Amino acid sequence: MNLQELKESLHLSKLSEEEIQELISIGHQHQIETDALLIEDGSEGFSFFVLLSGCLSVSQKEQRIAVLSPGAIVGEMALFNNAVRVGDVSALLPSTVLEINTSDFMPLVMHQEPVATKLMEHLGALMMKRLQQQDEELLRKAGENNPELQPFISSFAPLKKKLMADWALKYHAIGRPGKLEIAATKPSGTSQDLSVAYSPGVAEPCLEIHKNPEKAYAYTSKSQLVGVISNGTAVLGLGNIGPLASKPVMEGKAILFKKFADIDAFDLEIDQLDPDKLIETVCSLEPTFGGVNLEDIRAPECFYIEAECKRRMKIPVFHDDQHGTAIISGAGLINALELVNKKIDEIKVVFSGAGAAGFSCARYFITLGVRPENLIMTDIDGVVYKGRGDNNYLDELAVETDKRTLTEAIVGADVFMGASVGNLIKPTHLLSMNKDPIVFAMANPIPEIDYNLAIQTRSDVIMGTGRSDYPNQINNVIAFPFLFRGALDVRAEAINDEMKLAASQAIAHLAKEPITEEAGYDGGGVSFGRTYIIPKPFDRRLLIYIASAVAEAAIRTGVAGKELDIEEYRSQLRLLSAQL
Amino acid sequence: MNLQELKESLHLSKLSEEEIQELISIGHQHQIETDALLIEDGSEGFSFFVLLSGCLSVSQKEQRIAVLSPGAIVGEMALFNNAVRVGDVSALLPSTVLEINTSDFMPLVMHQEPVATKLMEHLGALMMKRLQQQDEELLRKAGENNPELQPFISSFAPLKKKLMADWALKYHAIGRPGKLEIAATKPSGTSQDLSVAYSPGVAEPCLEIHKNPEKAYAYTSKSQLVGVISNGTAVLGLGNIGPLASKPVMEGKAILFKKFADIDAFDLEIDQLDPDKLIETVCSLEPTFGGVNLEDIRAPECFYIEAECKRRMKIPVFHDDQHGTAIISGAGLINALELVNKKIDEIKVVFSGAGAAGFSCARYFITLGVRPENLIMTDIDGVVYKGRGDNNYLDELAVETDKRTLTEAIVGADVFMGASVGNLIKPTHLLSMNKDPIVFAMANPIPEIDYNLAIQTRSDVIMGTGRSDYPNQINNVIAFPFLFRGALDVRAEAINDEMKLAASQAIAHLAKEPITEEAGYDGGGVSFGRTYIIPKPFDRRLLIYIASAVAEAAIRTGVAGKELDIEEYRSQLRLLSAQL
Repeated sequence: MNLQELKESLHLSKLSEEEIQELISIGHQHQIETDALLIEDGSEGFSFFVLLSGCLSVSQKEQRIAVLSPGAIVGEMALFNNAVRVGDVSALLPSTVLEINTSDFMPLVMHQEPVATKLMEHLGALMMKRLQQQDEELLRKAGENNPELQPFISSFAPLKKKLMADWALKYHAIGRPGKLEIAATKPSGTSQDLSVAYSPGVAEPCLEIHKNPEKAYAYTSKSQLVGVISNGTAVLGLGNIGPLASKPVMEGKAILFKKFADIDAFDLEIDQLDPDKLIETVCSLEPTFGGVNLEDIRAPECFYIEAECKRRMKIPVFHDDQHGTAIISGAGLINALELVNKKIDEIKVVFSGAGAAGFSCARYFITLGVRPENLIMTDIDGVVYKGRGDNNYLDELAVETDKRTLTEAIVGADVFMGASVGNLIKPTHLLSMNKDPIVFAMANPIPEIDYNLAIQTRSDVIMGTGRSDYPNQINNVIAFPFLFRGALDVRAEAINDEMKLAASQAIAHLAKEPITEEAGYDGGGVSFGRTYIIPKPFDRRLLIYIASAVAEAAIRTGVAGKELDIEEYRSQLRLLSAQL
Repeated sequence: MNLQELKESLHLSKLSEEEIQELISIGHQHQIETDALLIEDGSEGFSFFVLLSGCLSVSQKEQRIAVLSPGAIVGEMALFNNAVRVGDVSALLPSTVLEINTSDFMPLVMHQEPVATKLMEHLGALMMKRLQQQDEELLRKAGENNPELQPFISSFAPLKKKLMADWALKYHAIGRPGKLEIAATKPSGTSQDLSVAYSPGVAEPCLEIHKNPEKAYAYTSKSQLVGVISNGTAVLGLGNIGPLASKPVMEGKAILFKKFADIDAFDLEIDQLDPDKLIETVCSLEPTFGGVNLEDIRAPECFYIEAECKRRMKIPVFHDDQHGTAIISGAGLINALELVNKKIDEIKVVFSGAGAAGFSCARYFITLGVRPENLIMTDIDGVVYKGRGDNNYLDELAVETDKRTLTEAIVGADVFMGASVGNLIKPTHLLSMNKDPIVFAMANPIPEIDYNLAIQTRSDVIMGTGRSDYPNQINNVIAFPFLFRGALDVRAEAINDEMKLAASQAIAHLAKEPITEEAGYDGGGVSFGRTYIIPKPFDRRLLIYIASAVAEAAIRTGVAGKELDIEEYRSQLRLLSAQL
């Protein structure tokens, strides 16, 4: 194969011209005869391949799982695992491959060679997609009762975890370390540009803002800037790992703000455990930001910290761990109750987990209409009852009851809300609940009860979890970017209960709409029902529905600093959602 | 002219295809006969024009200053002034123009229509360039003694100021308000991408950093992230305008970091006047940033605030107002002394202004070798002498002397350093100085003595100012971006005196090198001498020279957290400088 043919073949792989050049410069061509083995299951892998011509078969345990055409890449897992090959790859026709040794390729990536970085990102994404497909395939096959697949199924989960962990680390490290950069939005190439961006011209906007502080929204990035602020005391499920180690999460949160709502978010990791000092620091940053998203601050301090910051600041302050989950599970509850035809002021609700999310969800459910006496909170010590002697924030939720354990409390309940630990709820618990039980098992990554186990135990259950691989995912990203979008766009001075309720109602409403082209995905055949009570995170209409509802609520309740025509605003949001 | 011809003509204007479409959609074509007037000097202007065919003449006071060919834009000042036309424009040949009314165009800009924003940026830059050219032209003509131009010259300065102020405001407001946005550096388009950027994959880098804090440099943006932090108490020459009104300056500073050294800088405006609380806040942000640039914090608190932050933090902390000016004027001093053949330990130096810049320059000059007894500081109360009873930071610079005023102190001095107020120094002061006086008059925008006045008063003076329109500009941007680049790249835990000295020496050294292609500009015929003792801010070699010298000094003095091969590092910097 000459260079021109080689290039033409590589074009099939959808790589860029530069990426193709890169591969050619370090790759080696091989011919493979029909039926010859290119990759052997269980062997050590030190290279990956691009199929240039011919046809390859991929099989696992002698079952063919894919046929590859020219342009396909195979063996890329070697870059993330550097160990055992998973599956056999052999030629169905005489084939030509370009082999790239990881020992030739990885040094280029580590030296931040831009093309190698792009290629690595391409290969990482490819592997993630394949792992996801394989996961779905295995899930399907497991349902078909294939006992001979069992060893493979049980070895796949840890392999997937290892590969994903390796890619997660590489993803963060390659190219420019981390996930964020600060970019100029205005021309800055010439000295004349800089003479308006900086001294002397910059004095003009400074003086205008000094005369009228409102002008900061016109002349600085404040109007769409949110501070993502944490002290690292309750990071994901990892606990108190400190502010420095929390930085990847906060940068990730900033990316979600940008990707879903075009909001610029900057992460601040603050080394401060004293709640009052943390409050003072956050409040002193009010000139910098248009809004503050508190994140991963442990309970119970988080309640006091948020309340004080809200009281002292005139910009939206929102502790997502508390209210994000509350807004979305609230939306799910509204829709689930409609499906099972129960009234919110008649249902019995049991909570497990009185941390930031659980406590705030419980309060929010009461705001939504659950009677306080019908809501039982449980924590590691059992039922929070009047007289237990907590003498803290939990007293607000303590009820008169003779029940003392979750097992006692859940009997006859209509709703179970978990924000605690995985595998806490047994089939017997589920069976003891009322007809058509609603179970939101939000512990992550392992829910309080496994989705499939719950469905198999009771066919009348409506299940929601925090996981993306099951229906009804309760994922904060469904709310916070859009809630802030609406709040910032009307320059709200706070995010109040009415705005949160408006967000829940908008989410609940959207789940009942048919999946249109505007949604930005095909919907996979879903429509409103027990396995679709909450829209998917990638539904582009969330921006339009939630932001406009929140903006409208802010105007209605008098916290908006700026009026806008809601219909016109929806049109703007529609345009924005199409661009994201 | 049909649509096709119209488009072809507009292509000459170097606008983008979309910008051309935009203009066509709102413009109106006109024919102009030879000698007919398109724009009349002194008339009101409500539109601008693109010349489609023919030829136009631009004249001021009956002097032709330009001839315009098809594609040229004229009358754009109407967008920034909306008032009187400056100069006549008439047709030299039968011509066709496309006229765009500001009343049709500006609403598109105000609605953030992206193409209109780009066009506005184009027109703003065009006007700035023309104002600059006109300024230079007038300066030249003023030298030629044209008394009839005098009224025009004196009316031009305020007009230019007004136009620039208007553009500065529009520049900040159009498109996305402000100057910064936060961008994702990693792919984030799919749910698989987000599963590594955020939960669950993000837990991997978190855990790695938790095990080994150094890993934060590999997995987060910390390695090239600088916090630009101010409390707004001494902003430019505007004084204590507060943190909110300082935001445009801080965003501008961030842009300079990015443009000159590819460092991500994020601005924090902190509403905190208490020095100890400000220190505590800055120190608590150590996990967030790789370095801290304190900015526009008033003296004397700034000395204590910087010193404490330096003492308590293990990342570089640098108050640019103090040390930036010191480093560059130090470089200028080294070179100026070489030119006049004087020894640093023999010269007499007089300072005016004991604020952040003046005080720190004085200290730095002593570090460079000026004898303390040969340096006289003056402030608003005259000479800082031993026994004046300041009882504060100034005591460090108080000397035994019977001189009490600047007028007395400057007699026989070799060097005058001004960091105070405009027009303070009279010709008599300058004449009383020693032979070959060195005068750095850094008050901005009006120096302590006007550049031309000084040169006319004494031909043996070496003059430096803060202004870009005169030789020897002492501009902080010559140092801080590159200093931080070097410090971050070796993960320095501080910026110490040796690193600052290395920066000064690198700057001084570069001024003696011939202007090569690597400099990125033609140099305008300058070479080392009395009117070129300091490199120009846009010299691309500054990055290579300063960053490598600073990195080397950090390694040598044991504050580097990471070793690197300086020659290899210089090669990397050369690559980077070519990309910026």
